[in-house]
Amino acid sequence: MKLSKLFSKTTKNISKKAESKNHELLVRAGYVDQLMAGVYTYLPLGKKVLEKIEDIIREEMIEIGGQEILMPALTPYENWQKTGRWDTMDDLYRFTSYYSKNKVALGGTHEEVVTPLAKKYILSYKDLPKYVFQIQTKFRDEKRPKSGILRGREFRMKDLYSFHTDEQDLNKYYDKVIKAYEKIFKRFGLGDKTYLTFASGGTFSKFSHEFQTESPVGEDTIFVCRRCKMGINKEIILTQKECPKCGKTDLEETRAIEVANIFKLKDKFTKPFKAIYLDKKGKENTVLMGCYGIGPSRIMGTIVEVLSDEKGIVWPKEVAPYQIHLINLKESEEAERIYNKLQAAGFDILWDDRDESAGIKFQDADLLGIPLRVVITEKSLKSGGYELKVRNRTKIEILNEKNLIKKVKDYYAK
Amino acid sequence: MKLSKLFSKTTKNISKKAESKNHELLVRAGYVDQLMAGVYTYLPLGKKVLEKIEDIIREEMIEIGGQEILMPALTPYENWQKTGRWDTMDDLYRFTSYYSKNKVALGGTHEEVVTPLAKKYILSYKDLPKYVFQIQTKFRDEKRPKSGILRGREFRMKDLYSFHTDEQDLNKYYDKVIKAYEKIFKRFGLGDKTYLTFASGGTFSKFSHEFQTESPVGEDTIFVCRRCKMGINKEIILTQKECPKCGKTDLEETRAIEVANIFKLKDKFTKPFKAIYLDKKGKENTVLMGCYGIGPSRIMGTIVEVLSDEKGIVWPKEVAPYQIHLINLKESEEAERIYNKLQAAGFDILWDDRDESAGIKFQDADLLGIPLRVVITEKSLKSGGYELKVRNRTKIEILNEKNLIKKVKDYYAK
Repeated sequence: MKLSKLFSKTTKNISKKAESKNHELLVRAGYVDQLMAGVYTYLPLGKKVLEKIEDIIREEMIEIGGQEILMPALTPYENWQKTGRWDTMDDLYRFTSYYSKNKVALGGTHEEVVTPLAKKYILSYKDLPKYVFQIQTKFRDEKRPKSGILRGREFRMKDLYSFHTDEQDLNKYYDKVIKAYEKIFKRFGLGDKTYLTFASGGTFSKFSHEFQTESPVGEDTIFVCRRCKMGINKEIILTQKECPKCGKTDLEETRAIEVANIFKLKDKFTKPFKAIYLDKKGKENTVLMGCYGIGPSRIMGTIVEVLSDEKGIVWPKEVAPYQIHLINLKESEEAERIYNKLQAAGFDILWDDRDESAGIKFQDADLLGIPLRVVITEKSLKSGGYELKVRNRTKIEILNEKNLIKKVKDYYAK
Repeated sequence: MKLSKLFSKTTKNISKKAESKNHELLVRAGYVDQLMAGVYTYLPLGKKVLEKIEDIIREEMIEIGGQEILMPALTPYENWQKTGRWDTMDDLYRFTSYYSKNKVALGGTHEEVVTPLAKKYILSYKDLPKYVFQIQTKFRDEKRPKSGILRGREFRMKDLYSFHTDEQDLNKYYDKVIKAYEKIFKRFGLGDKTYLTFASGGTFSKFSHEFQTESPVGEDTIFVCRRCKMGINKEIILTQKECPKCGKTDLEETRAIEVANIFKLKDKFTKPFKAIYLDKKGKENTVLMGCYGIGPSRIMGTIVEVLSDEKGIVWPKEVAPYQIHLINLKESEEAERIYNKLQAAGFDILWDDRDESAGIKFQDADLLGIPLRVVITEKSLKSGGYELKVRNRTKIEILNEKNLIKKVKDYYAK
């Protein structure tokens, strides 16, 4: 992609006061545009990052047996009434269809849809376990949407739901999801800063778990054991004062962003919807259930909060919108040639072909945060090739074409 | 995928009266589930088909320079007020946020979002032309949602918007989109039945164009010239009585489903939003605009309406959820072996491994509509291999493993 053709542009300043670092950097770099409080458009660069984040999650969900579905955003009053959440969920967007006069809610979560749906296909123990997930847009009428794309009124969500015959089977799958999530956060470049934490399980289980990524802008306070990479949420630190893994009691207080949560719902939703299966003896039992969420848009914001530096964004390899940011300082056929060569070698390249100064081009490259920068100057060509620099390192290498391609390949090899 | 593990099941009858053939077949086969009038869940099989349809559209949009973005569903009152459509669009879902007290609409179309967005990045003639598209969920408070997924209150839409300096440039791109759409409908298996038709251009242009797929369940009446594959919509047949291409006047009246529409919006939206660019002489001009829609969910319904037969769905190769429907009639290690072999050869397979009768398995295979059926029986094995049958042909071939793989490869070669 030639930068001169890109739909968005980088901007020096953003008109409204930035809500947070991710808001400022993502808007300035042209990844997102704010339409109203808590509501954003994903521009071409931002859509690419979001898609890569969602593809990683999708891949890992399929790996643990998840089957992808797509549930609607419009959901009927009756379903929310059945679980009592029509009246208790503060942030549910509720309205009445003008024509049908039916009351509907915009799905902010989908237990009220997926449970009666699963019930249709689960009759016997032979139909269990089942795992379905979706990656889709969710809506919550947040009191105070804030922190850019970390907490929006409209946001992207992956929600996985699992259905089981018994608690043992639920527990087994629950642990499998924890492992999948750990893999996912590692691929997002957030592995080092993300803690599995104990959170309140509400009224129907002792604990739930969250994944919390350490960041000063996080809304949550957690207590972590750095050795075990485990934590405890503030809300339950009073009853549970030690790390469940090593027994350490001098846990460290820190701020974190909740990037995922997983929940043993058991029969909380299957009971009101009467989701029943027949066991081997023909006896009726209530299906047990788990739910597991990750928000791709929040992840995107978290990556920016946690990994960016004073110059701009630093994308991890697997989620960067492009693999190479190519810069030429004068109009040159050589730039066109190497652009085509690198594309032919299978790389995704953003080529800054604009008629701008070196200063602006380097500044924008740092702001955009693509992992590898390749620069062509008269000097580099005289020295036999191209400058290669990794976004968050200072070292610049001069490489000839063959070695450049090899280096880039090695960098992106998993 | 083993059918025994699939989240959905086929059902003989559906409880509610089916609205149409696509509704009945898609629900019975387990592709979709109706949540309420005009609102559907895409089950694993349906999600796969929808994704393939969307991927084809995406590919062809990128081919003509489209850059993908993702605009929100929540859209502010102010933008709709500016174009006057807050009051004139009957089917706009409008409501007020409980917390912010802001009036919002659910996007049923996105000119009110994309135009002020494009304005931010278009300053000079150098920034034009620009093409952006999205594939996303849209909402319309339809008076009478009907015909299954052909006309829903919530549906999938691809909307492309183009921005130009002048009409000549707009016309050139408009023709390019027509060609891309023709390619798309061919890939959907709808090429033969789809007509480019002249429709009313409303108040701001003489004509717009639609793509209409001939079907008795279509809501539109069109007059077609079968030789030129062109048509005229009923609403304008009074002023335009002949085929614009060949001048033929004895056009044939028929029913059709509107599967796409394209529109030269010119300055209809760029004017109220004051989207201005500076031309080469530094003079201010209004940006001109085109918009181009295709609804992937409606396409899915149309394919079922147009290509299915009395036994069930007949998916075209490029959109089928799986490439091979594998059936074994007795428990057999041979089925497992060939399942793995075919998967290793790169094919997507749905294996009916259930303990069901031959009758039920064949019936379900016809209902599900996967293009190729491979059957293993004791008889076929004795004759040296496997039965291969194309969904909508009667011929059955017995092939050994090598020839089976070759035949399947040839079938799916583009």
